Amino acid sequence: MRTTLLLLLLVISTPFFAQSEDERQLRAIYDKALTNGKAYDWLNHLSNQIGGRLSGSVQAQQAVDYTREQLDSLGLDRVWLQPVMVPKWVRGTPEFAFIETKPGVTTNVPICALGGSVATPDVGIKANIVEVQGIEDLEKVGRENIEGKIVFYNRPMDPKLISTFASYSGCVDQRYAGAAEAGKFGALGVIVRSVTLRLDDYPHTGSMSYGDTPVSERIPAAAISTKGAELLSTTLKLNPDIKFYFKQNCKQLDDVESYNVIGEIQGSTYPNEVMVVGGHLDSWDLGDGSHDDGAGCVQSMDVLRLLKETGYKPKRTLRVVLFMNEENGLRGGNKYAEVARRKNEKHVFALESDSGGFTPRGFSFNCSDENLKQIQSWAGLFEPYLIHMFVEGYSGADIRPLMDQDLVLAGLRPDSQRYFDHHHAENDTFEHVNKRELELGAATMASLVYLIDKYGTIPNKKIKG
Amino acid sequence: MRTTLLLLLLVISTPFFAQSEDERQLRAIYDKALTNGKAYDWLNHLSNQIGGRLSGSVQAQQAVDYTREQLDSLGLDRVWLQPVMVPKWVRGTPEFAFIETKPGVTTNVPICALGGSVATPDVGIKANIVEVQGIEDLEKVGRENIEGKIVFYNRPMDPKLISTFASYSGCVDQRYAGAAEAGKFGALGVIVRSVTLRLDDYPHTGSMSYGDTPVSERIPAAAISTKGAELLSTTLKLNPDIKFYFKQNCKQLDDVESYNVIGEIQGSTYPNEVMVVGGHLDSWDLGDGSHDDGAGCVQSMDVLRLLKETGYKPKRTLRVVLFMNEENGLRGGNKYAEVARRKNEKHVFALESDSGGFTPRGFSFNCSDENLKQIQSWAGLFEPYLIHMFVEGYSGADIRPLMDQDLVLAGLRPDSQRYFDHHHAENDTFEHVNKRELELGAATMASLVYLIDKYGTIPNKKIKG
Repeated sequence: MRTTLLLLLLVISTPFFAQSEDERQLRAIYDKALTNGKAYDWLNHLSNQIGGRLSGSVQAQQAVDYTREQLDSLGLDRVWLQPVMVPKWVRGTPEFAFIETKPGVTTNVPICALGGSVATPDVGIKANIVEVQGIEDLEKVGRENIEGKIVFYNRPMDPKLISTFASYSGCVDQRYAGAAEAGKFGALGVIVRSVTLRLDDYPHTGSMSYGDTPVSERIPAAAISTKGAELLSTTLKLNPDIKFYFKQNCKQLDDVESYNVIGEIQGSTYPNEVMVVGGHLDSWDLGDGSHDDGAGCVQSMDVLRLLKETGYKPKRTLRVVLFMNEENGLRGGNKYAEVARRKNEKHVFALESDSGGFTPRGFSFNCSDENLKQIQSWAGLFEPYLIHMFVEGYSGADIRPLMDQDLVLAGLRPDSQRYFDHHHAENDTFEHVNKRELELGAATMASLVYLIDKYGTIPNKKIKG
Repeated sequence: MRTTLLLLLLVISTPFFAQSEDERQLRAIYDKALTNGKAYDWLNHLSNQIGGRLSGSVQAQQAVDYTREQLDSLGLDRVWLQPVMVPKWVRGTPEFAFIETKPGVTTNVPICALGGSVATPDVGIKANIVEVQGIEDLEKVGRENIEGKIVFYNRPMDPKLISTFASYSGCVDQRYAGAAEAGKFGALGVIVRSVTLRLDDYPHTGSMSYGDTPVSERIPAAAISTKGAELLSTTLKLNPDIKFYFKQNCKQLDDVESYNVIGEIQGSTYPNEVMVVGGHLDSWDLGDGSHDDGAGCVQSMDVLRLLKETGYKPKRTLRVVLFMNEENGLRGGNKYAEVARRKNEKHVFALESDSGGFTPRGFSFNCSDENLKQIQSWAGLFEPYLIHMFVEGYSGADIRPLMDQDLVLAGLRPDSQRYFDHHHAENDTFEHVNKRELELGAATMASLVYLIDKYGTIPNKKIKG
């Protein structure tokens, strides 16, 4: 019944000939992606020949060089590097931590410094520990119970939410602002439960911020694996007097120059209207950044190639942008939007893939109701590919700075169940990306770009936030 | 727009109170599955404590004992074993194969005997090889080019199909009937490209049949890994005179007694109307049978538990059936239907999960149009869980023998992209099952069972095939 109604809507809204041409074009895109996609090979190189690409690292620069070279080989109209200054944070030697139940009796637990954290003193920090379920607990616990201790944030992700991104949103404040807040109560450091739904031994890093905390008052912050967190919590219940030790020598260095990597096919009819498709080229350093966000980069690169190979010439200018420094600064996204504004470039559409290389389910959009309605009228075209989500929602961090323009912002929405098993951890690696799932994502993105280009977006002054 | 229309349909077709009760019940089922599911623990035991469960093996019997004991612990109204004679085929010592480009120059390739195959002679078989793209090629190639050789079936799965089950269907005849057919042309043995979309080193086994070929004329059949197949094909193009050697000592023994494992909650209102939910307990022997079909078994077991734990008392009798011998005989499925017929049991619904423990996308049904329409009217209830497929199609091998009854047959349809990466191979193992994906499948099944039980099925004489 659902299908019938949707088809009915399509028949009403588009002439038969056009619909069938669209069907053919989407089929050609998916066929090409599944039989002759390049995304998986590119990702193999990014992941296995280069590896984790933290902003300012040698690997990040290698990734810039490699992707530029690959875009050069595609015969686009223009490929260039857009300079941007990025923060350079380095992890240093591997972190080390243990629970001390009594003097000399210790159990090691896996931790990693949060991105942006300061180091511990050279000898590490050993102190009593106080467990809380979130920043909002600090007030209740009170300075008298926090001062001189390590605060242990242990609120888990909510497994009941179907979208794991929603669960993530409900927890990530502990990681991002936990140190700044606990510092105000005199804590010596913070340990944060890794933001993942799995129970395992991987600590998950991620960005944190000290806000306006003066440098001299910043306390170190580390993530502990979920199994480590469970052990720590249980041990603490048995004996609140246990001590926790951790040591890390990460460091924030001076900003360095890096680049957004950009490739472009000039529009044949409206060259001044720009459509962007992209992901972020930087990643955390623990794994090789395959899902976050090597996948989004290689899919975006393949969007241009797939359209070219299927003989489609965009009416509007189509750009792939591989943004630098999404993870710990968003400098690339901000720079791209700033330059676009300065040059008075008119952007009509931007699509980001930054939710992993899993089976695509659809898109979420920041756009006007009219644009969302038009896009939803295309749903029937995507049905053969099991793409069924066309909803209002989050698009992507790197493209959001474009939002003051009158444009449609879109985010690819892959299946989210496994994303946080790997997110920012040592096991975000190439073997956990399935070739077909990655390719289906690239084809789904290329299909949306094709339809947006062909039918245009609907100008609107009020874009939704 | 899609959502609005679907909601509109629901509002029209069900009174508001009932809808909201259904919403609450589905939410309760999903919450329970995601926070307190048992499926993953059960699967851990089946996979890691028992392992591959080939019909007639010690492991198959251990699985019968274990699942019976677990069902016993759930406080169902009745748990029993239904005896069934099953074939017992054993692999023997690991198979061995190589390509010989010239005397003494050999390259080993990974193979495994197909289930049901005869052994090679003790010394193995070494012969020239002839590559074909399917059974239909044999006639063209001709007896003169086949006699005394090994036939190499090398048609790959079609990567362009979105459902990998459709690709599988397009290839599996080579594996199932390839030996019987090649034998008619005087072949000494057959080597079949593994039925998977990945390029890797795992040979994938699976059932084959000699049809009515007399025992003395049966030739051995083995699967070769896809990388092995590519190597063999390339080598053959360079030099058609190469030889292939393989050796296997598998054996078909006498049938042995085994069991379907059955648990039941008696219906409170219509105890004589039976609803079945199940998977198959046997598996191939190379991996531990986690996706095929440990997942389907533990999900089915959890369906009864989830309904019980959420306080729902079925009006109809609800049975979980863990079928024995789906892989190489279907004896369990046939036996269950035979006994049901003999006892004049009225079955109104049967649901099978045998497509892997991946994120559920919906169901396919063998049922009347009226029943399909009723089920599709519930689609809005499933939308929060991203369940969107309610289509006519294949249900499940084990429940199909019930089809002469007037009932609704359903198959869970999980995401299919990764299924054949693992199917019947050494890497069908527990670590490739994601806990949440498995749990979402169990909850989705329980939700459909709840709705079918609550609203009933629509009697119909003409069930679709």
